[in-house]
Amino acid sequence: MLKVNRNFVKLPQSYLFVDIAAKVNQFSKLHPEMEIIRLGIGDVTRPLPKAVVTAMKIAADEMGVAKTFRGYGPEAGYEFLRTAIAQNDYAKRGVQIGTDEIFVSDGAKSDTGSIGDILDVDNVVAVCDPVYPVYVDTNVMAGRAGEFEEGKGWSKIVYMPCLKENGFLPLLPKQHADLIYLCFPNNPSGVGISRNELKKWVDYALANGSIILYDAAYEAYITQEDMPHSIYEIDGAKKCAIEFRSFSKTAGFTGTRCAFTIVPKDLVFDGTSLNKLWDRHQSTKMNGVSYVVQRGAEAVYSEDGMREVKENIAYYLNNAKIIIDGLKTAGFEVYGGVNSPYVWLKTPNQLTSWAFFDLLLEKTGVVGTPGSGFGIGGEGYFRLTSFNSKENTEKAVQRIVEFFKA
Amino acid sequence: MLKVNRNFVKLPQSYLFVDIAAKVNQFSKLHPEMEIIRLGIGDVTRPLPKAVVTAMKIAADEMGVAKTFRGYGPEAGYEFLRTAIAQNDYAKRGVQIGTDEIFVSDGAKSDTGSIGDILDVDNVVAVCDPVYPVYVDTNVMAGRAGEFEEGKGWSKIVYMPCLKENGFLPLLPKQHADLIYLCFPNNPSGVGISRNELKKWVDYALANGSIILYDAAYEAYITQEDMPHSIYEIDGAKKCAIEFRSFSKTAGFTGTRCAFTIVPKDLVFDGTSLNKLWDRHQSTKMNGVSYVVQRGAEAVYSEDGMREVKENIAYYLNNAKIIIDGLKTAGFEVYGGVNSPYVWLKTPNQLTSWAFFDLLLEKTGVVGTPGSGFGIGGEGYFRLTSFNSKENTEKAVQRIVEFFKA
Repeated sequence: MLKVNRNFVKLPQSYLFVDIAAKVNQFSKLHPEMEIIRLGIGDVTRPLPKAVVTAMKIAADEMGVAKTFRGYGPEAGYEFLRTAIAQNDYAKRGVQIGTDEIFVSDGAKSDTGSIGDILDVDNVVAVCDPVYPVYVDTNVMAGRAGEFEEGKGWSKIVYMPCLKENGFLPLLPKQHADLIYLCFPNNPSGVGISRNELKKWVDYALANGSIILYDAAYEAYITQEDMPHSIYEIDGAKKCAIEFRSFSKTAGFTGTRCAFTIVPKDLVFDGTSLNKLWDRHQSTKMNGVSYVVQRGAEAVYSEDGMREVKENIAYYLNNAKIIIDGLKTAGFEVYGGVNSPYVWLKTPNQLTSWAFFDLLLEKTGVVGTPGSGFGIGGEGYFRLTSFNSKENTEKAVQRIVEFFKA
Repeated sequence: MLKVNRNFVKLPQSYLFVDIAAKVNQFSKLHPEMEIIRLGIGDVTRPLPKAVVTAMKIAADEMGVAKTFRGYGPEAGYEFLRTAIAQNDYAKRGVQIGTDEIFVSDGAKSDTGSIGDILDVDNVVAVCDPVYPVYVDTNVMAGRAGEFEEGKGWSKIVYMPCLKENGFLPLLPKQHADLIYLCFPNNPSGVGISRNELKKWVDYALANGSIILYDAAYEAYITQEDMPHSIYEIDGAKKCAIEFRSFSKTAGFTGTRCAFTIVPKDLVFDGTSLNKLWDRHQSTKMNGVSYVVQRGAEAVYSEDGMREVKENIAYYLNNAKIIIDGLKTAGFEVYGGVNSPYVWLKTPNQLTSWAFFDLLLEKTGVVGTPGSGFGIGGEGYFRLTSFNSKENTEKAVQRIVEFFKA
């Protein structure tokens, strides 16, 4: 008789954003008069850059003509895109990454979710608390998490608290950890990490034979000079870190789907090249990203593409500023939003995150994300995103200010 | 110290088609005068249907305008595409499949490769011999295959020989198997399966609490009336089968990337709904397929799309006929190619598959795929595909006939 993977059954019934969507739907049915403003899920709203649209249309036309038609592409991505990535995202910042260290994929979620496949199930996993749920859930599925204990979390996972006292940066793990997930600028807290602080993590990993799984999906939002855009800007990181990047938040690709992961050749553990293992994983389990989409991603690096991307990011960062400024006048404690599209706020009056979610929805129609949805360490906090239009952001902030000032 | 997944290290160094490409590259360098004709890898060559290109361009334009821009889509695919699939691929054949039983993905390789994630590692896997390597390799990676023994295969995998005496259909497994991979029309042998024969497998699975992982990527090539296009045309299959479909070979999507997997709600094993588990897998580990690509896939079902798809498939099937007819005149034993783009031939003079590969390449410049690359049962056989142009196919066949008739 077939047996299922019991680790899947351990997972909580549903996914954070599914729960939120259900609550919002229910509220909308009861209060059809209330206009909902969504500052919840981290999804972009600005259209794709024109340069990207043009490139995708040209590529679609090529696919309709025998002479320029393309079948299976290289699993790890076309050389044209990998070269553009190596030059623009790395060489320009003084980091040398070979194109054979770049693996193009359909999303950072896919890659952060699957990277564990090449690693032993007995490795000890450390995550920030609060944390993007995918890191934890995929390790639960893989059998690395142990058992869930209410109010404590997963028995085998090492949680690294991100405390206000430490500027929401995680504390180094107290127990040995083999796999350390880091995300900077951080989701959900929106804080970035300085070169000096990140160096501590690279040093820890090198000293302990650990690997850092570095999610840099939000690097394009960095405004401060002393913040590294890539972990490879830190000496030694090529020996201890895999970096995940995405076009989703950079260029509005959440519905277009393209990302990439850097697995340096210097990453050798257990006598084994992780670059070779990931190459094998990808070439066995997928067939690369759509040619049309890869041409779109390439156009992100064109002069017009980069200009439009910068404009969009400036637009979102301005929304973040509107949120920060407004919330401060209403007396909120507010963090993040300067090197990130995410604003992280302390709930007022010691409300739990979900109580604040309900209150905010009911009184202002604004949808955010409860900090506790990202882990125990997020309790009492709340995430707002800058991905709505300026008009809606202003309207949402105005409603919040009016209600909470009163 | 981080440990890698040792199962990965067990895998043979490289992938069949990578080995072939290396041999061909080497040959080309030594013999630049010889024009190579590739009838090896199963990759289409006809351009995308015009209807698909048009739909993708319209979708790209939508993505460039704020009002019609789409961010994250539903992980399992847009309702417009799932409805088109349910109606055209299933309802028209008398099979009722709910849209929530359809999971759109970027490829059947991704889905056949990852489906094992939701199943226990101790399940016994049965595969055809010869077989599409991905089914085996992904189970090796997952730890279900045991140890590789030269000349025997993987110690824990149950091989189901596909013998000439049985029309290259597999024999029912002699030992109990929990997970049975079937592919019809078959890759590599190109043979289809009749309703009556497939019923034996469904009955076996129902009687033994097994699941059939049914790869129907080539169903569009079926020309014989008595052959089911979907395993769900067989009574009881919804209780024991997952079906994999793809736009790759149907509509030329090998470089465009879209496929779908059916996980019926009736599939309950171990007290657990596999539909729910796969939904959880997909929503945790990916973010859906590009909107632009899904609009392209939807257009496959338009009147123009279906006409163009039929024309392309007729074109490939005509190539298969050219290969079959030619090889027969040269005295080859030839199979498949009637309900499939693949022709399966017995190597002449008891040559091994690789010896025939080398001979064919050297004497005719034609690249095919050694049957032994698909497993021990493929030794002494060879696969040719109909995916090249008619002109090249004729030229290749002419060269083969000339050389082997002599």
